[in-house]
Amino acid sequence: MAELPRTMQVEAALERVRAAVGPQGWTSDPHDMQPSLEDWRGQFQGRARMLVRPAETREVAEVVAACAAAGIPITPQGGNTGMCGGATPPRDSDGIVLSLARMNRIRAIDATNFTMTVEAGCVLQRIQEAALEVDRYFPLSLSAQGSCMIGGNLSTNAGGTGVLRYGNARELALGLEVVLPDGRTLDGLTALRKDNTGYDLKHLFVGAEGTLGIITAAVLKLFPRPRAIHTAWCAVPDVASALDLLARARAESGDAVETFELVSRAVVDLVLTHIPGTADPLEKRYAHYVLLELVSSASADDGLGQRFQQLLEEAFAAGLVIDAVVAQSDRHRGAIWALRENASEAEKLEGASIKHDVSVPVSAIPSFWDAAWQAVRSVAPDARLAAFGHAGDGNLHYNVIQPAGGDRAAFLAQREAINRAVHDAVHRHDGSISAEHGIGRLKRDELRRYKSPVAMDVMHTLKAALDPDGIMNRGALL
Amino acid sequence: MAELPRTMQVEAALERVRAAVGPQGWTSDPHDMQPSLEDWRGQFQGRARMLVRPAETREVAEVVAACAAAGIPITPQGGNTGMCGGATPPRDSDGIVLSLARMNRIRAIDATNFTMTVEAGCVLQRIQEAALEVDRYFPLSLSAQGSCMIGGNLSTNAGGTGVLRYGNARELALGLEVVLPDGRTLDGLTALRKDNTGYDLKHLFVGAEGTLGIITAAVLKLFPRPRAIHTAWCAVPDVASALDLLARARAESGDAVETFELVSRAVVDLVLTHIPGTADPLEKRYAHYVLLELVSSASADDGLGQRFQQLLEEAFAAGLVIDAVVAQSDRHRGAIWALRENASEAEKLEGASIKHDVSVPVSAIPSFWDAAWQAVRSVAPDARLAAFGHAGDGNLHYNVIQPAGGDRAAFLAQREAINRAVHDAVHRHDGSISAEHGIGRLKRDELRRYKSPVAMDVMHTLKAALDPDGIMNRGALL
Repeated sequence: MAELPRTMQVEAALERVRAAVGPQGWTSDPHDMQPSLEDWRGQFQGRARMLVRPAETREVAEVVAACAAAGIPITPQGGNTGMCGGATPPRDSDGIVLSLARMNRIRAIDATNFTMTVEAGCVLQRIQEAALEVDRYFPLSLSAQGSCMIGGNLSTNAGGTGVLRYGNARELALGLEVVLPDGRTLDGLTALRKDNTGYDLKHLFVGAEGTLGIITAAVLKLFPRPRAIHTAWCAVPDVASALDLLARARAESGDAVETFELVSRAVVDLVLTHIPGTADPLEKRYAHYVLLELVSSASADDGLGQRFQQLLEEAFAAGLVIDAVVAQSDRHRGAIWALRENASEAEKLEGASIKHDVSVPVSAIPSFWDAAWQAVRSVAPDARLAAFGHAGDGNLHYNVIQPAGGDRAAFLAQREAINRAVHDAVHRHDGSISAEHGIGRLKRDELRRYKSPVAMDVMHTLKAALDPDGIMNRGALL
Repeated sequence: MAELPRTMQVEAALERVRAAVGPQGWTSDPHDMQPSLEDWRGQFQGRARMLVRPAETREVAEVVAACAAAGIPITPQGGNTGMCGGATPPRDSDGIVLSLARMNRIRAIDATNFTMTVEAGCVLQRIQEAALEVDRYFPLSLSAQGSCMIGGNLSTNAGGTGVLRYGNARELALGLEVVLPDGRTLDGLTALRKDNTGYDLKHLFVGAEGTLGIITAAVLKLFPRPRAIHTAWCAVPDVASALDLLARARAESGDAVETFELVSRAVVDLVLTHIPGTADPLEKRYAHYVLLELVSSASADDGLGQRFQQLLEEAFAAGLVIDAVVAQSDRHRGAIWALRENASEAEKLEGASIKHDVSVPVSAIPSFWDAAWQAVRSVAPDARLAAFGHAGDGNLHYNVIQPAGGDRAAFLAQREAINRAVHDAVHRHDGSISAEHGIGRLKRDELRRYKSPVAMDVMHTLKAALDPDGIMNRGALL
């Protein structure tokens, strides 16, 4: 049989896609497609022939098989809340966007096994709530949780505020169901804590940003529900003292530290300036703060509150903490968290900022902090540093903001030089240029610059082996 | 240039290997090689041209490059303590055994970052001790810890008794250094908690049993050092009650359960019979026991002991525990642990046993337990069950022992049928036929029988992509 011309092959494949998902499952209306062709930060815009929204795994498989047969590229998409444009199709794409949004069922909850089986399109917050309903806890927590979807969380290996204690999204998945680039379904929905039967394939797909296949469902780990939360806002003399405080808090609390967020004074000032209703919890001004939270899931009072007080007193006596306030109510706790949670919004209202989501070994934070700032100052002497982040994991949002009252465009023209200053410092401190946001379309060039050639080559080998025609999320990551 | 004949290629390659490691680094003396050609359980014997013992990563890389060039197969070996023959060369091998034993340096300890960088040949117990020396804890713990090596622990994704709280070996590695099958070195010795810069390559090599490359070094996660250990030996009315006890203990203790070992009466009887100095901690006989241990790393008394008492009292009132004793001293604790730790040895002294290292979802343990036993009884009516294991992870050592006073050989002749009975039941309960021991040479056929064809195919694809000539640990796993 002679091969069909390419255009006829593509048309036949698209017809097969439409048949697979039914009239509810696709659109090619430009207006309806628009939100899926752009990332929420407005950094990337792309094109697609069709937005396809399958409702079942077998529909996803059929869609992918049809596209594979005709070489049609596929951009998988969840809540479209990513920071790096990984869910936006390429500008020149003649492929489809495959949204998992209709695959939003919780398939099973097993409280005894501490697991939940969910489809990729489940919104993170709904999973958190479903866990609480059975007296369990799903600890992944990040600011987009009201709209991000678990498939995207897994595909980008999302981080957030609970990593220190519970790990990244990767550590919270026991099993995955994945539609491979050839349309076959890999059913790895195991709910096992221990399974040494060959290569652990799930880890290949977690964090692969959809370039090796489409995660359609997952078995998630649950934990006992937290019962008591103890929160303090601590002024620390310097970054090094904050790290001493972390080690002490871990040891003295019995590793109950769930939150350890470092916030510099500059960030607090921006929040107080731009976010109505916020207030400084302490009377005096200090250079750095730590938002420290200890959490217990013990059902009776386990004295953690008392030990928390004692820890703070000892840290004060040792000079690691120079002032502190402990949250006395949920409302008080909310007011403290507002200083951290509004950091990005306040930075945005202040003007242009050049953001860096980086990590270094925890012990290297002080040296990195200073070295990076010196390097930035050498190219942008009047820029301001507004750094904060999950210091307990070595993860900093090391954001550089424009000079007060300065010219926005002139500042942004220095983006390349400022990125270089920060990322070179990260590299010298054995760190990562993308701690939790991934690579997407935003950081592909940076990845090539800093990742070892051997690692890049192994990644390309894996990509070529599993997706030889390169149809899965073309233009992202690699 | 004309190609050299194969034998000359091989000779040249072996000469290059000898030159790479120097006279200390190799032997072809049959007597010296013997311990490396056999597994400690005596299940597998193999052949090799040479035992090579490099002392540095660059020597490993040179050895592998030389072998790759001539297609010489390599069997990597650590402490040679595996349960499945994964470190024994094939019977017909004309390759080398590459021992990591001389690569035994602790390269760095970073107490502030809670990490340690070790070479593959470090004995597990030495790593545990080095962590304690800096007031930290490395929680991987298993009976071979005095001789097994961390490279093998990682290559087999070892489990042990601390998995419920700390995860498998996989979860304890932050970064790896790996010599690839072509001799290149992948330097992934990151000490980062968060790094989303592409595929997480380390997870490909952990649990791959040396078939994709040789792990030469690793960055390990450390934890705060435990300060207080509370141990109880609890009689439970049935397996289901044990699981209720587990859920209750996790919730009430604030997830401080470090050990949750289920031991059936038959195991206790074997230990009391065969192991001198052991004694039943309780006066009456019960069908099932749980060895329960709560651990706190809090530096001051956090009242965990009191809550432990309360938990046991409540469990008693609820009928989940029908008798119990709490360890009153280290010596008492040791006597309780002896019942669990001597289980394998006692089974061996009792006669022939057919072992199954399986896992199922924790909630499926009661149903699996009964279904598997019914199936075994239908093929071996007089066989006895001696089951124990890490029930908190769903992992059971579901061992079937020969009829009392029966014929050893006749019993062992039923191995295939008994394996089938147990593994079929595992499969029906969505479990794993190798929870923590891996596949090695022992379970290759079983793997093919139970693993999904798609998963097998993806594994073969990865193997072919990374080791196209199949020189790495030929005959193991795949």
